[in-house]
Amino acid sequence: MIGKLNHVGVATPSIDEAVKLYRDVLGATVIGDKFPLEAQGVWVCFVDLPNSQIELIEPLGEASPLKGFLEKNPKGGQHHVCFEVEDILAAREELRAKGATILGTGEPRIGAHGVPVIFVHPKDMGGVLIELMQTPKEGHG
Amino acid sequence: MIGKLNHVGVATPSIDEAVKLYRDVLGATVIGDKFPLEAQGVWVCFVDLPNSQIELIEPLGEASPLKGFLEKNPKGGQHHVCFEVEDILAAREELRAKGATILGTGEPRIGAHGVPVIFVHPKDMGGVLIELMQTPKEGHG
Repeated sequence: MIGKLNHVGVATPSIDEAVKLYRDVLGATVIGDKFPLEAQGVWVCFVDLPNSQIELIEPLGEASPLKGFLEKNPKGGQHHVCFEVEDILAAREELRAKGATILGTGEPRIGAHGVPVIFVHPKDMGGVLIELMQTPKEGHG
Repeated sequence: MIGKLNHVGVATPSIDEAVKLYRDVLGATVIGDKFPLEAQGVWVCFVDLPNSQIELIEPLGEASPLKGFLEKNPKGGQHHVCFEVEDILAAREELRAKGATILGTGEPRIGAHGVPVIFVHPKDMGGVLIELMQTPKEGHG
């Protein structure tokens, strides 16, 4: 089922500061502008690497799901891993049949790449919050 | 400085159980055998994805640096992110000059891919434990 490792989600209290780290200290050269993903309660900014991406995420709004994470990890840290799948609904059904718990309503939402995504509860995933994303079509994401 | 996202390190109390998760639930198809990396106090097993890898790591020995992590995260979880760099010593010097803290003696050790690696303290890296690995030569890693 899982294909490419699309990105690692890294939570940060400040995307601006995190961009300085990835650009000025770690020397990443392709970093997008930050943009709001209101439905998910996060600001998003992608650091492009030759084969994958780091997704920097910062809380947006009072109900941001990142708030609890940042209370436990004030400097930020690794938040989730996103794998691509060919068909998000088929992936969801297969995971449910195998006993995994899909977060929220379970209905895919449009994620930061403009394609549907779901999140799988870490309790069944070895403690890792896993995002599954339908593989973006060529030239789209 | 940083190039490819070589792998995401995922700590687990049991590589055997984690392999079942990645193979039977998440449908990964290319998974190596586990092997000991005694100098680093871990068992290692790579899950190959089309563009990157998940590195499953399990404590090896009483002094394993993973023990504290698993006490805090009994089910396991994301432990580190590994980026490739062209020259490990140049990367180390550049990071030190910019105030980052290299773990241990700072001397590169041979990592799971047979090339030198260093680890950078998460306190300066947005809460993320970062491994830097000298890019493996073609056909070597």
